[in-house]
Amino acid sequence: MSIRTGIVGFGYWGPNLARNFSVAKGGELRYICDRDPARVEEAARLFSGAKATTDFGELLRDDALDLIVVATPVSAHYPLVKLALEAGKDVLVEKPLALTVAEAEELVDLAKACDRLLAVDHTFLYTGAVRKIKELVSDGELGELLYFDSVRVNLGLFQHDINVLWDLAPHDLSILCHLHDEQPQSVIAMGASHTSSGFENQVYMHLEYPSGFVAHFHWNWLAPVKLRLTSICGKRKMVVYDDMERGEKVKVYDKGITENARGVETMKKIFVDYRTGEMRAPKLDHGEALAEEASDILECVKTRRQPTSDGEFGLRIMRLLDGAQKSLEGGGKRVELRGVGPGGGGS
Amino acid sequence: MSIRTGIVGFGYWGPNLARNFSVAKGGELRYICDRDPARVEEAARLFSGAKATTDFGELLRDDALDLIVVATPVSAHYPLVKLALEAGKDVLVEKPLALTVAEAEELVDLAKACDRLLAVDHTFLYTGAVRKIKELVSDGELGELLYFDSVRVNLGLFQHDINVLWDLAPHDLSILCHLHDEQPQSVIAMGASHTSSGFENQVYMHLEYPSGFVAHFHWNWLAPVKLRLTSICGKRKMVVYDDMERGEKVKVYDKGITENARGVETMKKIFVDYRTGEMRAPKLDHGEALAEEASDILECVKTRRQPTSDGEFGLRIMRLLDGAQKSLEGGGKRVELRGVGPGGGGS
Amino acid sequence: MSIRTGIVGFGYWGPNLARNFSVAKGGELRYICDRDPARVEEAARLFSGAKATTDFGELLRDDALDLIVVATPVSAHYPLVKLALEAGKDVLVEKPLALTVAEAEELVDLAKACDRLLAVDHTFLYTGAVRKIKELVSDGELGELLYFDSVRVNLGLFQHDINVLWDLAPHDLSILCHLHDEQPQSVIAMGASHTSSGFENQVYMHLEYPSGFVAHFHWNWLAPVKLRLTSICGKRKMVVYDDMERGEKVKVYDKGITENARGVETMKKIFVDYRTGEMRAPKLDHGEALAEEASDILECVKTRRQPTSDGEFGLRIMRLLDGAQKSLEGGGKRVELRGVGPGGGGS
Amino acid sequence: MSIRTGIVGFGYWGPNLARNFSVAKGGELRYICDRDPARVEEAARLFSGAKATTDFGELLRDDALDLIVVATPVSAHYPLVKLALEAGKDVLVEKPLALTVAEAEELVDLAKACDRLLAVDHTFLYTGAVRKIKELVSDGELGELLYFDSVRVNLGLFQHDINVLWDLAPHDLSILCHLHDEQPQSVIAMGASHTSSGFENQVYMHLEYPSGFVAHFHWNWLAPVKLRLTSICGKRKMVVYDDMERGEKVKVYDKGITENARGVETMKKIFVDYRTGEMRAPKLDHGEALAEEASDILECVKTRRQPTSDGEFGLRIMRLLDGAQKSLEGGGKRVELRGVGPGGGGS
Repeated sequence: MSIRTGIVGFGYWGPNLARNFSVAKGGELRYICDRDPARVEEAARLFSGAKATTDFGELLRDDALDLIVVATPVSAHYPLVKLALEAGKDVLVEKPLALTVAEAEELVDLAKACDRLLAVDHTFLYTGAVRKIKELVSDGELGELLYFDSVRVNLGLFQHDINVLWDLAPHDLSILCHLHDEQPQSVIAMGASHTSSGFENQVYMHLEYPSGFVAHFHWNWLAPVKLRLTSICGKRKMVVYDDMERGEKVKVYDKGITENARGVETMKKIFVDYRTGEMRAPKLDHGEALAEEASDILECVKTRRQPTSDGEFGLRIMRLLDGAQKSLEGGGKRVELRGVGPGGGGS
Repeated sequence: MSIRTGIVGFGYWGPNLARNFSVAKGGELRYICDRDPARVEEAARLFSGAKATTDFGELLRDDALDLIVVATPVSAHYPLVKLALEAGKDVLVEKPLALTVAEAEELVDLAKACDRLLAVDHTFLYTGAVRKIKELVSDGELGELLYFDSVRVNLGLFQHDINVLWDLAPHDLSILCHLHDEQPQSVIAMGASHTSSGFENQVYMHLEYPSGFVAHFHWNWLAPVKLRLTSICGKRKMVVYDDMERGEKVKVYDKGITENARGVETMKKIFVDYRTGEMRAPKLDHGEALAEEASDILECVKTRRQPTSDGEFGLRIMRLLDGAQKSLEGGGKRVELRGVGPGGGGS
Repeated sequence: MSIRTGIVGFGYWGPNLARNFSVAKGGELRYICDRDPARVEEAARLFSGAKATTDFGELLRDDALDLIVVATPVSAHYPLVKLALEAGKDVLVEKPLALTVAEAEELVDLAKACDRLLAVDHTFLYTGAVRKIKELVSDGELGELLYFDSVRVNLGLFQHDINVLWDLAPHDLSILCHLHDEQPQSVIAMGASHTSSGFENQVYMHLEYPSGFVAHFHWNWLAPVKLRLTSICGKRKMVVYDDMERGEKVKVYDKGITENARGVETMKKIFVDYRTGEMRAPKLDHGEALAEEASDILECVKTRRQPTSDGEFGLRIMRLLDGAQKSLEGGGKRVELRGVGPGGGGS
Repeated sequence: MSIRTGIVGFGYWGPNLARNFSVAKGGELRYICDRDPARVEEAARLFSGAKATTDFGELLRDDALDLIVVATPVSAHYPLVKLALEAGKDVLVEKPLALTVAEAEELVDLAKACDRLLAVDHTFLYTGAVRKIKELVSDGELGELLYFDSVRVNLGLFQHDINVLWDLAPHDLSILCHLHDEQPQSVIAMGASHTSSGFENQVYMHLEYPSGFVAHFHWNWLAPVKLRLTSICGKRKMVVYDDMERGEKVKVYDKGITENARGVETMKKIFVDYRTGEMRAPKLDHGEALAEEASDILECVKTRRQPTSDGEFGLRIMRLLDGAQKSLEGGGKRVELRGVGPGGGGS
């Protein structure tokens, strides 16, 4: 049995989704929908196997349609996802899940009430690099995690309607939340705007967790050299993920510290020794991340398995962005977080 | 006329100072003083031209002695510098200038009152790299400065009596203050301790300035790869200073942004275009920084010129460290700064 | 007036040529020809503005057609180019120009006799990097050239009908000949085959020139890390061209040596001092090389200017490959070269 | 029982030998000898435990002396080593073993006749990097070796009495011979001199072996960037040894090729597929190579074990240098080699 899919929104990202869902095993791309007739015509030309339409109702009314993929501007996410869920469809929606935390919460609740799957498209989780790091963390190879530090900067396209936080943070926050489940207790975000737009083009964000784990980020549209560099430090090993490397993107360092006490009882002090062993760069899967994701989502629909990046997950990211934005607006004030961890949210 | 110098403290750094002051042109190393007779004996063996002694009073009483260099543990800085200034000597003291801001202020005032030079040893300012960057900033090649971002991390020696801030921050803060004179208005510092010592081994620090300029730092003793990477972004050009590079440590990027308004009057938005030109790595002077510093200090003593890193400068660094420590202790709270800029301090 | 172009051969490279010639200013893509009807159908679908045909004669008979681009397998180059020239067409042909030096010579002579342009497609010459290096050489910034050293290795696709020399050497040899006009006097080539095919997968080639200039190459399909690294050393400056760099592919080092004699007349020896100055990475044009080439060829056709990579140039490359192959077969014996330089060929 | 050692020659390298032999376990540095009284005085000052003398005969006559280390200019190697062996001493001599192959052969024969150890100081073999690579080769992890490619270039000190071959080649040739025992059949060397001295400052050398293994080298005093890069390719894995890396100098790539035949019997062709797995950088021992060597030589003297780099080994290097020099002088002509492998030499 093939999973029948319809895509709504055929702008920047829609064609990539269509390309991957049209060839994914176990699926059938049945509709492409856009309100712009010119886009619909283009869709019809490129994907002759699917029906192209401006009428979203057509998708909702087709009882044989299983999955609706929402790739419209973010302001349309909430109404379209709501309609789709209410029509009994499973949904994959572009990030961010909605405009506000309140909308996102409502959609998560609705999906539960309707017993439908709600997935959010955080494509980075399907890259070979992140899948490998997830495996290293899950297998316990890194040991208990101590910190996550990520830098994503370059001389890049300045968005003119959002700040750099909302542009770049979803990537790193989704990787962080995927690797480390703990609920952070607070966020501090500090930014600067070097143009007259007032939108921050440089933002630092800091998360604190009850366990002592910390996460720190630097996003910047105005940097001389492009960096995509994430360090994940565990008690046993450390990982450096450098997305600008052509060859070995993920390096695992067998390095760490050991504590020991020296001196007599009353005067004893804690000394820290460090040890350093081999480094290895595991082989990564080089398949296209979006192809992996399409397969996985179709599999979830078929088997009713909850996707990795489900509504709850998308909501966690929304709450982190929301908290960071409040901190930015408060000039770097510390903002307490609630309900960001898995199973949290009962605020 | 040679400048006669005496060094007090012959522990870790003292021999380096002695080696450089014993050969610096225009100077004569007359004394090495340490309260440990074994160190005095070693000094006598290595520097036969100087008098080695355990009696600091001997230096104070020698009317022909011009300069006293204090390289003792930091707790002895205040009393020794005070005695030296009161005895009419010029002073070069290891960083940090004193244990507390109050002590440091007192020493700065005393030097003024005695009309003596007080210099603080921030050796990094004399490296070929920092001297070249200072020149680029002073010449206006970078344009107005927008931000300073510095990362100094590695798997390093954990100190067991101070946190990573007091260990590593003086290097980067001295470079920042040397390049950018503005008085910061606030500091936020966030840290984590991953050992049972409670001392932070990972600290992020953020400085905000009235002009919109920001400075951000990451110091870490528990990092998989050694990084010494500073970015200085100006309106016209940007500099990357990578101290781990063997060859080209300083790279100047002819990159930047330009703003322009598009759209009709009522709807017009600010768009940002970026431009990218050539990169160049200027030739750097490869002389030993401490040799440069010794020459410069001797020259200052001779000509009564104020040294680059004088007491006021050392005090600025102390106030930044003090503010950051308070923020750390307040869990990342924003701490207002006063008197950190040049000519500030009137608190 | 538009230059009317026909392309013959729509296999691997043909579609790239068609894409670029169909949009190049001053040109009109009129025909795409292939003997395989399936390829012709594909061409018709992708380039609806051009006429797709299996009949090469149609191109020859169209008096309004100016330029024929030959992108067939190399064995068809000779007969097709010959027909095109005899029909009065200008020709751009894929490298290598022909199967043998004799064929290539005949085509060069024929083009002259017919007064038609004959260009060979060495696309690398149109990359931003090579154009910039050519400029540096022509402007005299490097001074007299001393050597050229190039490494092009990776774990790559083993061809099963040619050795690595014929696969990779044309790239580097075309760059060398473009930058340095001198006629080499001899070639030595040394190879190894690490498979049972007998085709060399690793070849070193060495060229000697009357002036003392040398060129050396390493090509390898069986190397652990991908390298594309060329050093060009002049008396005044040196260039490193690293095609694997994302950012600064071309670096110019202001480094060199100076000689001086020391000692008394009868005992004097030559000493060599070296000097080292700044490095700079000039801004490169990032346009697609093939688009640059298409424009340039159309311009040549229009203005009757001789293209950079004309028949003579293609013939020089053929003679170098031919000499190297003879040396390989002779176990690394030195092979004398004739007629490889510009204006050479009078053998 | 301690091994009593005397060092003759206290110029550039002698003090390093003295420092290491004076602290090596199981040894006692008894003499330092130099014909220059000023050097003898310096030796006496720095190594008070040893007797400093200008009289080499004193060492020969001391029956309790076990080992003589010869660190004089190369022209004195032959007479001093000969005297030492004849006096019944074991000998460690700086590379190269002697001025000519004939002298070297005579010393090797003499050592055998006297039943004394003769070791040649190829310090590189004792670095952590080379020891690790040797282990990888010996354990069969790389599989059968296919090639060795080494580049050792920089803008360096031009020697004024030898060419770059004799300056830099001993390092790489000793590493090659240590890792691969096979006897090469021929050498081709190609050079260029870019100064008026006539001494080659740039040399390429190529070795061919009966098994199909090849080795290739590039040495250059006139290169813009310092490279110390060696690739060792085996049938199963490949190693890249980059001596300029601060961190991971040795990287092991689990990469290679597999052959398979495709097509029907009469038409079948060999196709080559490649596979690529993980990379790892093993932990290296960071001890000083010369300290390792001193310990090892003392151990050899005590246990009468033959050292890794014995007279035969030093002679192999001499024969390779001699062959390469002959090829250089013949303008890159192929020179047949005899007696370079282990157990060879019976020519």
